[in-house]
Amino acid sequence: MDCLLSLLPTCVRSLAETHASTLSTEQAQFIGVALVSLAAVYLGYLYILSRREASVSFNVPLPAEVRKSTPGRQWEDAQGQEKRVLEDQVCGKWNDRLIMSYCPADGRVLGNGIKPATVEDVNRAVRAAKTAQVEWAATSFAERRKVLRTLLKYVLDHQDDIVTACCLDSGKTKVDASFGEILVTAEKLKWTIDHGEKALTPERRPTNFLMMYKKNMVTYEPLGVVGACVSWNYPFHNFIGPVISGLFAGNAVVVKPSEQTAWCSAFFLDIVRGALASCGHSRDLVQMVVSLPAVADTMTSHPDIAHLTFIGSRPVAHKVCASAAKSLTPVVVELGGKDPAVILDDAVTVRNLASISSVLMRGVFQSAGQNCIGVERVIALPGVYDRLIELVAPRIQALRLGSILLDTATTPDMGAMISPASFDKLEALIAAAVEQGARLLAGGKRENHPQHTHGHYFTPTLLVDVTPEMQIAQTELFAPVFLLMRAESVSDAIFISNSTPYALGASVFGHNRRDVQACVSGISAGMVAINDFGSYYAVQLPFGGVRGSGYGRFAGDEGLRGMCNLKAVCQDRFPRLVGTAIPPRVDYPIQKRDGVAGAKDGLSAWEMCKGVVETGYQLTLGGRVAGIIRLLRNM
Amino acid sequence: MDCLLSLLPTCVRSLAETHASTLSTEQAQFIGVALVSLAAVYLGYLYILSRREASVSFNVPLPAEVRKSTPGRQWEDAQGQEKRVLEDQVCGKWNDRLIMSYCPADGRVLGNGIKPATVEDVNRAVRAAKTAQVEWAATSFAERRKVLRTLLKYVLDHQDDIVTACCLDSGKTKVDASFGEILVTAEKLKWTIDHGEKALTPERRPTNFLMMYKKNMVTYEPLGVVGACVSWNYPFHNFIGPVISGLFAGNAVVVKPSEQTAWCSAFFLDIVRGALASCGHSRDLVQMVVSLPAVADTMTSHPDIAHLTFIGSRPVAHKVCASAAKSLTPVVVELGGKDPAVILDDAVTVRNLASISSVLMRGVFQSAGQNCIGVERVIALPGVYDRLIELVAPRIQALRLGSILLDTATTPDMGAMISPASFDKLEALIAAAVEQGARLLAGGKRENHPQHTHGHYFTPTLLVDVTPEMQIAQTELFAPVFLLMRAESVSDAIFISNSTPYALGASVFGHNRRDVQACVSGISAGMVAINDFGSYYAVQLPFGGVRGSGYGRFAGDEGLRGMCNLKAVCQDRFPRLVGTAIPPRVDYPIQKRDGVAGAKDGLSAWEMCKGVVETGYQLTLGGRVAGIIRLLRNM
Repeated sequence: MDCLLSLLPTCVRSLAETHASTLSTEQAQFIGVALVSLAAVYLGYLYILSRREASVSFNVPLPAEVRKSTPGRQWEDAQGQEKRVLEDQVCGKWNDRLIMSYCPADGRVLGNGIKPATVEDVNRAVRAAKTAQVEWAATSFAERRKVLRTLLKYVLDHQDDIVTACCLDSGKTKVDASFGEILVTAEKLKWTIDHGEKALTPERRPTNFLMMYKKNMVTYEPLGVVGACVSWNYPFHNFIGPVISGLFAGNAVVVKPSEQTAWCSAFFLDIVRGALASCGHSRDLVQMVVSLPAVADTMTSHPDIAHLTFIGSRPVAHKVCASAAKSLTPVVVELGGKDPAVILDDAVTVRNLASISSVLMRGVFQSAGQNCIGVERVIALPGVYDRLIELVAPRIQALRLGSILLDTATTPDMGAMISPASFDKLEALIAAAVEQGARLLAGGKRENHPQHTHGHYFTPTLLVDVTPEMQIAQTELFAPVFLLMRAESVSDAIFISNSTPYALGASVFGHNRRDVQACVSGISAGMVAINDFGSYYAVQLPFGGVRGSGYGRFAGDEGLRGMCNLKAVCQDRFPRLVGTAIPPRVDYPIQKRDGVAGAKDGLSAWEMCKGVVETGYQLTLGGRVAGIIRLLRNM
Repeated sequence: MDCLLSLLPTCVRSLAETHASTLSTEQAQFIGVALVSLAAVYLGYLYILSRREASVSFNVPLPAEVRKSTPGRQWEDAQGQEKRVLEDQVCGKWNDRLIMSYCPADGRVLGNGIKPATVEDVNRAVRAAKTAQVEWAATSFAERRKVLRTLLKYVLDHQDDIVTACCLDSGKTKVDASFGEILVTAEKLKWTIDHGEKALTPERRPTNFLMMYKKNMVTYEPLGVVGACVSWNYPFHNFIGPVISGLFAGNAVVVKPSEQTAWCSAFFLDIVRGALASCGHSRDLVQMVVSLPAVADTMTSHPDIAHLTFIGSRPVAHKVCASAAKSLTPVVVELGGKDPAVILDDAVTVRNLASISSVLMRGVFQSAGQNCIGVERVIALPGVYDRLIELVAPRIQALRLGSILLDTATTPDMGAMISPASFDKLEALIAAAVEQGARLLAGGKRENHPQHTHGHYFTPTLLVDVTPEMQIAQTELFAPVFLLMRAESVSDAIFISNSTPYALGASVFGHNRRDVQACVSGISAGMVAINDFGSYYAVQLPFGGVRGSGYGRFAGDEGLRGMCNLKAVCQDRFPRLVGTAIPPRVDYPIQKRDGVAGAKDGLSAWEMCKGVVETGYQLTLGGRVAGIIRLLRNM
């Protein structure tokens, strides 16, 4: 239809050219009216199409804590007293009857605790998802897009609420949440709406000489129920990311969020289910399982979960993969990194250094460094090394830590860390590096925040003159540490970049094309941003790493297709005319019994087979002809 | 160059048109000579190009047993006496000092036994592969194609030797080996030569509104050392398949063949290394590890193996995946299937039934049924059911079992099985099915071959009236059993097809487009052949299954890319003109300290972020404009 209508202008032009001199006024008027009517019909058709996929408005109840965190109002509990941290139950600990949630920025309790899922809860969730998926698998891409548009509209209309929930449960700032939770989620939704159908459209594949009568296709079909075990650092985005891909591919999705951000995840589940329900689909399509590790194994080795996305740490990944080996469930493994940002020292780059340092600081301190693609190592060439220190040192020293909850009218530069569990190790690594010759120019230790005495804060740190031998240059910190290393040359920078077991993301800043290209291909990584930080994810390129950073990809075409059964289909191009028939010589039984064919049959069968192979694959024309002759002789 | 030269004809034409009337004879002659010279230079260039990639001839020593198996000559050992099966050490058993090889068709011993690899042997193999890969990663696709062409030439020139080695070690017939070892290997080589570079060429990916100044690419880079643990049913093809993909992707490859076909694998390793060496590359690029299960774990959890291809059975797959979880190595898991072949009963299909029955028999009895995509269930509609029995029953009864070694001038219909280990279970399953109402029309038990008393033979079996509830309809047999099931309708046929835990391949025979399409999309499988058997693999479509048949794909674009690091690269379209700069409002520190900016900064920063998201992702034009206004107000 679209194609047909796009021909219209051409037709009119040629019509006009041909008959210009012979048209009467009446005829011209008639043609004019006809054209206007046609255009109106077409626009109407487009309108109906767009309405069919248009977003729907819906609402879900906001968590009380989010409602109360409106600007200008102090948070209070029902009795007018703030409930503070339950010392024994939090700080990274939980018991097996109740998972307690609290805000790491000031220690206040969130909600009333969540009962961890039992094995039966997991089975029930998977069963419900499986049942709901049957109908969902039959929906069109347009129907699925409608759900995603509805979700996108909700996200855009409720940025404040979603961000507040994330900040409460993870301790981050609103600006950090905007970049890491909202922007990337909107992008993932928009990418899937715009490019998802294309990624899942059946594809033609080539055939060969012997099978020239075949037509080959690859199609992408839903897998059934897919699962995701995701980390706490982006509670909204990590929760909803696999849901977007999973649903669009026609699957139901079971998500296990981290226990550390279980409270806000319940709100996010409500949002997703609200979008589904308001478009007329089953709420059961998305399930959430908050569980302790022992029960998580039930999910990661569940026979009815066809695919797992794991975002987390290496020690947990070993357990998840060992568990998945029981059910032979494929896993996409997204671990941490020790991402390098290489700063070359050509003239243009030197000139841009102030701007680059701003990008680097965003890369290091975004989400207090709790970012799997955060810049963990800045590797600078001699021509920029000292100037970079001069640029960032005062800015890092000036960073203010805090919570959005106290200063509702302002925003601190950096929020809290999810837990103080890593603080001892961080301080020890920094101290050891200083011992080995590194210079500590800012921070370096935990901060006892004057207002938020129960918050988990670490001071923004600048550590320079770090060398690859130091333990701190080998360990993923997941902390607000600007770690600067000197490289003597481009190849040295590449060598240092590759000196850790990790290979997730990387940045290269430079304007000498050859040097930049050397870094891009030389650095072992799954993703590279040139003159930027993390931009590959802001455009939904496939996300993932190699070596110590895991395997598999989410996002992009690969991420979406990874949640599908790729079905290869081989069929006849002209089924009524040409098809496969077994040549009589190799037709069973090969040695004909009824006396017509003799004992030579067997040898001929083999010779014929040789002829077939030569006909199809000999490297020279002569060889092929010889093959055809051998084939014909032994038919 | 190619592009430039292809413009030539156009230039000449336009030149001729413009100057036709004004050209003197001399000028015309000059142009003529110039053109001929140019064409000669171009042809020379093409010739040089083709020579650069041309195959090289080489030879490797043939195993003594292959040399002695030339037609017309009985196999004898050095003393003129045949060494027979070592009763204690073979029949599927081995000890931990020596892996003994023998021919399952007649029990003769092959070679002198192979010392199983130790942990240190595995480490040494991986280390050598890793060292050799560094140089190989830098080779061009042309250089890699030259190696594949060289290999293809060797395979085509030595079909008899390779097939004989396969037949000796696995007991199959030469015709079976031609289809399952030679044809598919030639196809894989040719596919990779013809389409490999295209599959690994960097691809452009879309960008979005906010990042319209970015250019996005995905590139495919070598992973390093990849591994493959492969099964015994196609000793040559399974060995060389992962080697072809692995090498072409720029990797080194470590192969662990089955202990049951270790003898011929040593010959195949020689072939691959011969091809590499004759093209000037390191023989170390391909390594073979023949080991017992305990040592195999060293390989499957080796930190320097970046990717594993596993072709084998489910119980072993659990162990391999659990082992790979220790090193977090990604695994492509190719298990068995219970592949259905659905026969519809439209008029055209009924008419073609004789021809279809020939295809089905090839699908069932190829390699004595030891074929992962073998037809394990024939599911026929009422209109063809009885006629199909009439057609195949006499042919199955007429099948002759035997070895190529005795009847060198002929070929038996079906060879031996790899071991008698499954015979008890097979006989029990058949007996139980008969008990439950199935009719046994041929075979059904092991065969004591009159000549080959030490061979492992199972009689070609026809079992009809099988129902999904019978155990035999649920279990992969990997045996020469034509198992016929009746379906009442198309949807019933789909239901029966999906009634097992497996989902590897499937065939659909029919000519009613709607019914065929219903089967193709309704049957749970990774691959479907329409009116054919296994044709999807003969054109190198991506190979693999879902559910109980494993996950991941080898062959095709997906197989080749799966052995690569997919690197996502995001760069500026015009790097000197537009790049990413952090807006001052969110530049660290966000709350400017030196008094210029006030406390409102923080709130503005958040409002600006909201504006960015709305600008990029609002669903309506009005929404976007509002976003831009919010953005500008808070800059």
